[in-house]
Amino acid sequence: MRFSKLYAPTLKDAPADAEVVSHKLLVRAGMIRKLTSGIYTYLPMGLRSLEKVKTIVREEMERAGAQEIFMPTVQPADLWKETGRWDFYGKELLRFEDRHGRGYCLGPTHEEVVTDLLRGEVRSYRQLPLNVYQIQTKFRDEIRPRFGLMRGREFMMKDGYSFDRDDAGADESYHAMYEAYKRIFTRLGVKFRPVEADSGSIGGSFSHEFMVLADTGEDTIAVCQSCDYAANVEKAEVKGDFAPCTESCAAMEEVATPDKHTVEEVAEFLGVPLSAIVKTLLFNVDGEPVAALVRGDRELNEIKLKNYLNADEEPELASPEQVQEWTGAPVGFAGPVGLKQVKRIIADSELMAANDYVAGANKADTHVLHLDLARDANVEAFIDLRMITDADPCPHCGGALELPKGIEVGHVFKLGTKYSKSMNATFLDENGREQVMIMGCYGIGVSRVVASCIEQNHDDDGICFPPPVAPYDATVLCLDPRKEDILGKAEEIEKMMEGWGMSVLLDDRQERPGIKFKDADLIGLPMQVVVGGKGLKNGIVEVKDRRTGEKTELSLENLETELKDFYQKVLDGWKAARD
Amino acid sequence: MRFSKLYAPTLKDAPADAEVVSHKLLVRAGMIRKLTSGIYTYLPMGLRSLEKVKTIVREEMERAGAQEIFMPTVQPADLWKETGRWDFYGKELLRFEDRHGRGYCLGPTHEEVVTDLLRGEVRSYRQLPLNVYQIQTKFRDEIRPRFGLMRGREFMMKDGYSFDRDDAGADESYHAMYEAYKRIFTRLGVKFRPVEADSGSIGGSFSHEFMVLADTGEDTIAVCQSCDYAANVEKAEVKGDFAPCTESCAAMEEVATPDKHTVEEVAEFLGVPLSAIVKTLLFNVDGEPVAALVRGDRELNEIKLKNYLNADEEPELASPEQVQEWTGAPVGFAGPVGLKQVKRIIADSELMAANDYVAGANKADTHVLHLDLARDANVEAFIDLRMITDADPCPHCGGALELPKGIEVGHVFKLGTKYSKSMNATFLDENGREQVMIMGCYGIGVSRVVASCIEQNHDDDGICFPPPVAPYDATVLCLDPRKEDILGKAEEIEKMMEGWGMSVLLDDRQERPGIKFKDADLIGLPMQVVVGGKGLKNGIVEVKDRRTGEKTELSLENLETELKDFYQKVLDGWKAARD
Repeated sequence: MRFSKLYAPTLKDAPADAEVVSHKLLVRAGMIRKLTSGIYTYLPMGLRSLEKVKTIVREEMERAGAQEIFMPTVQPADLWKETGRWDFYGKELLRFEDRHGRGYCLGPTHEEVVTDLLRGEVRSYRQLPLNVYQIQTKFRDEIRPRFGLMRGREFMMKDGYSFDRDDAGADESYHAMYEAYKRIFTRLGVKFRPVEADSGSIGGSFSHEFMVLADTGEDTIAVCQSCDYAANVEKAEVKGDFAPCTESCAAMEEVATPDKHTVEEVAEFLGVPLSAIVKTLLFNVDGEPVAALVRGDRELNEIKLKNYLNADEEPELASPEQVQEWTGAPVGFAGPVGLKQVKRIIADSELMAANDYVAGANKADTHVLHLDLARDANVEAFIDLRMITDADPCPHCGGALELPKGIEVGHVFKLGTKYSKSMNATFLDENGREQVMIMGCYGIGVSRVVASCIEQNHDDDGICFPPPVAPYDATVLCLDPRKEDILGKAEEIEKMMEGWGMSVLLDDRQERPGIKFKDADLIGLPMQVVVGGKGLKNGIVEVKDRRTGEKTELSLENLETELKDFYQKVLDGWKAARD
Repeated sequence: MRFSKLYAPTLKDAPADAEVVSHKLLVRAGMIRKLTSGIYTYLPMGLRSLEKVKTIVREEMERAGAQEIFMPTVQPADLWKETGRWDFYGKELLRFEDRHGRGYCLGPTHEEVVTDLLRGEVRSYRQLPLNVYQIQTKFRDEIRPRFGLMRGREFMMKDGYSFDRDDAGADESYHAMYEAYKRIFTRLGVKFRPVEADSGSIGGSFSHEFMVLADTGEDTIAVCQSCDYAANVEKAEVKGDFAPCTESCAAMEEVATPDKHTVEEVAEFLGVPLSAIVKTLLFNVDGEPVAALVRGDRELNEIKLKNYLNADEEPELASPEQVQEWTGAPVGFAGPVGLKQVKRIIADSELMAANDYVAGANKADTHVLHLDLARDANVEAFIDLRMITDADPCPHCGGALELPKGIEVGHVFKLGTKYSKSMNATFLDENGREQVMIMGCYGIGVSRVVASCIEQNHDDDGICFPPPVAPYDATVLCLDPRKEDILGKAEEIEKMMEGWGMSVLLDDRQERPGIKFKDADLIGLPMQVVVGGKGLKNGIVEVKDRRTGEKTELSLENLETELKDFYQKVLDGWKAARD
C-alpha cells in the first residue's frame, strides 16, 4: 500500500479529551476519529487492526465448534420484559420507539435475542449442544464515555452463546470456550491472564475474565506467585485465621473527636493505628439501608456485599442527607452501635479477630472507644467483605500474591438457566420430558482488544503493535520518492516482502525524512526498512525493530536473506517478550 | 461441513407473512429468521452467502482505489440539521435521545457523517481525490416492512463516498465506481442491467441504478432492443412527434355522465376511446394544489412531475375531501377547465398533439366534450409527464423498447455539492482559493443482493444459488451415514473436493434419503453428489446440476476427473445462462 494513497491522517497533537495512551495514539496515528461522545469512526488502518482481531477470533471460534450467525442491532422491548432486564438494565440500555410507537432498544448484548431464536427451533435433545456467535456493533449508553476505544458507547464485540442439555454439557461448552479464548489471546500476541471473575449483572453461576496486563488497566487482579490462582480483586476471596477474639475489653465509652471525619484524622487524633478503627459504610441496597463494616486500613469490596445480600442492583453509597437521617450525625461519625434505622449490619470477618475498637458514635464530633462488636453491636454476619491486598495469602495455596493491573478484554460466563427459564427455552430429553436448556455466554471486546494492545505496547514515540494486530507487517520508508532509483528500490523491497506473504506500507509521500521517521514510530508497525540515497550508494538499507528500537544495516547484495532473518528476529522477540 | 453439526433448520412450510419467493425460501432453507417486523437474524448459511457478497464487493472496491472505513451506526442529530435532512427525511429516519437528552438517529445512510469526517481532515487539493466506503448494518423505519430481505428495516449495505476537486474529477470517480459495480454484479453471477435513474431524495446531478432482472422485481426498466439505452421507467424520457395540433374543434359543451367516475367508465359510456379522454390528477405538492394531465390511456410519472416542480417531497394525491373542495365535485369529475383553486396545471406533451378531448367538468356527474386544451384550459406547461410504454420509441435511437422487471441492488449518484456546500466541506486549490468538494455516493444493498439472486434463480423445489453466492459450492448426500463404508466414501469425496478449493456441505444426518434430496433442492447448492449403497455396489455415484436438474452417473474408478468435469460444466452452464 502506498502511504500517499492511504487515508491515514497522522497528527502531531492528541485531542484535548484523550486521557489514556491508546486513545491519544489511535487518533494521532490516523486510525480513529471521534464522531461524538463515545462514538468513533475507524479509518483504514484502524479497521485493518480490527479486522485482524476479528479473523483470529473467528478462526478459533470455528475451531472450537461455534457457528457464526448475525443477529439484529435493534431489539424489541418485549423480549427484555420477558427476562425482566427491561426494568433492571438501567440507563445504559438505550431505548426508543419506532414510527408505530413500539418499544425497542439498541442491543448491548444478545441473551434475549439468541434465546428467543433457539426456543423457536430446538425441540429435541438431539439438536443440542449448540454454540453460536456473532461479531457485531453494540451500544451501551455509558454515562461518561471516555478512554477512546477502551470504553466507548458504540463498540465492536464478539458475543457467543452455548446451549446444552445438562450441567455437564454446559461445563464442557464453557471449557471449550475458555480454551479457545486462551488460544485467541495467545495468537493476538499480548500478555494476558484468565482470572476468576464475578458474574456481574449478566448473572449466572461462574465466570472468568481475560485480562490484558497493562499498568493503565482499570481492573486489578490478584495473581499467586506459587500456584496458578488468578482472580479479579472484585472476586478474590480473603482467607485468614479469623477466629473470634476471646479476650474481653473495657466497657464502651464515648470520646469527643471534634471535626475528625476520616479514619485517618480519627487515628491521628486518638493516637491509635488505622487497624484499631471500625469503618462503617452506609448503603442503599435495593432501597434498604445497610451498614458494612471493615477495618480502618481496609477497603470494602462492594461486589462481596452485593452478592451476600443477593441484591439486584449495585449498592449505592448513602447520601449525606441519608447518613444524617439514619445515624443522627453528619458523615464521618457513623458506627455500628445504636443504629436504629439500619436493620442490617454486615462486618468483615477480620473484625472478629480482635476487639477494643474505635468507631463512630452516631453523634456529631463523637466516637466510641473499647468497642467489642460481638458484645456491643448487632452484627448480622461476619463474612469476607473486603478487598484483598498483596499482604494477604493466596486463597488456594497460601502463597504470596501480586496485584497487577489489567484490562478486561474477554469474559466467559456459565449462565445456567437464568435466561432459558424465564424465556421458556426448553427441549424434550431422551425420555420425552421437557427440560430447560443450560446456557453459557462468551464475549470479547474486539475494539477494546485493539486499544489494550496499545496500552500494553507503546513508548514515548508511539505505538509498538504486536505483529498479529498491526495494520501492516512492515513499512518501507522511501526517503526521496522523487528520485526514480530510490523509489524503484523501495518498491522492489516492498514487492519482495509481499511475495513472502507480508503486508507492507510504502511511505512514498513527498515529506521530509524526519516526518516519515516520526510517523513510522507513531504508527508502530513492527519493522521499518529505510531506503535512502546515501545508503543505496553504500550498498545498504537500514532496518529497525520498532519494539526494541534496534537498528541494523543490511547489505543490498544479500538483502533477501538478511531481511528475512531480521524480520524473523523481530517476530521471535515479540514471542519471547510475551511468554 | 457436516450438516449434522450445522445450525440450518429447514422447514416444510413458509411463514404465513412471506409474500415473495426469496423470503419464503430463505426462511425454509434455514438461512434467516425473523426477530420482529422487518428485522432478521442471519443463520450460518445465510451469513455465508452474505459474506461471499461482501468479499466480492470489497475486492472490487479496493481494486477501484476505494478505501474501507467503518463509521458509526448512531449519528448525532446536529449533523442532519446542518444539511436540513433532519426535517426532510421523514419517519424512515429513526430518531431517539440518549440518557442526556441529546438527539440521535440510526444511520440509514452516511452522507452527513462522512462529510463531517473529511471536512475535518482535508485541507488541500493535494489530499484529493478520496474515495472511502464501508459495509454496515443500516436502519430505515419502513412503514410496511415486507418481502424479507428485499425490504427490511435493518439491512446490510455497502455505502461509499467520493470527494473530488472538480467536476471532471468527480465524473472520473463516478465512472470508476460504475465500472466497479459492473464487475461486482458480473462476478456475482446474476443477470443485471445498469440503468439511468432518478436521483431521488439523496439528491444530486445524475445517477445509475443496477438492476437484477427478475419477474418479481418492483421496478420496471425500459431497455432498447437496438442501442444500449436502459433506464428506470421513472426516469425514461418519452420522445415523440408532439407538434401542437393545428385543427380546431367544436365549442366545448357539457354532457351528463351519471356515476361514471373512472376513465374506463366514461369512455364506455360515451363510446370514445381512452385516448380521447384527458385524465386530471390532483396533488398536494409541498402544500400547494397541482393538477397533472395525461391521456386517458396513459399513466402519470410522478417523478417527472416532482422534478418539473422542483419539489422537496413526493407529490401526494389529493384526498377526496380536497378534490371536493378544489373542484366542487366528487372524485372522478375533475377537469382542467375552471379549476379556480388550482393555479398550476401541468400537461403531458402528448396531449398537445390533438384536441376534441373529453374531460371532467368539475361538476358532479358531468364531463365536457370538445375540449381544446390550448383554447379552453390554462395549462402552465406541456412537458414529458407520463410513464413510458413498450409502444414508445427508444429516446436515444428510436428503436423498439422492452420493459422487463428488475430489483434495484446498487445505485451510484453524482451528488455534486449538495452536502459539501451545506456542511462547508472545503479545501484550498492550487491557487490557495477555497473550493467546495464535489461528492459522489455509491450504494449496494448487500443483503438485498442475496435475496435478488434467489428471486432470479429458483424453481418449485427451492433455491438455485448462483455459484459465487452459494453458501457452499456443493453438497454430498450420504444416504446411509450409519454404514461406515458409505459415510467413508462420502467423506472421501468431500475431502477431494475441498482439496480443489471447493466448500462442501456433507449431509450426514440420520434422515431418510427423501428428506435429504428435498433439503438439497431447497437449499440449492449448485452441485449435488449422491453417495448411496446401491450406487457404490455398482461402482457409481450420481451427480446433479441443481440449476438444470441434469443428473449423471459417474464411475468411482474415474471419479476425480469425471467429477471435476461435471462441476466445470455446472459453472459453465451458469456463465452461459447469465451472458
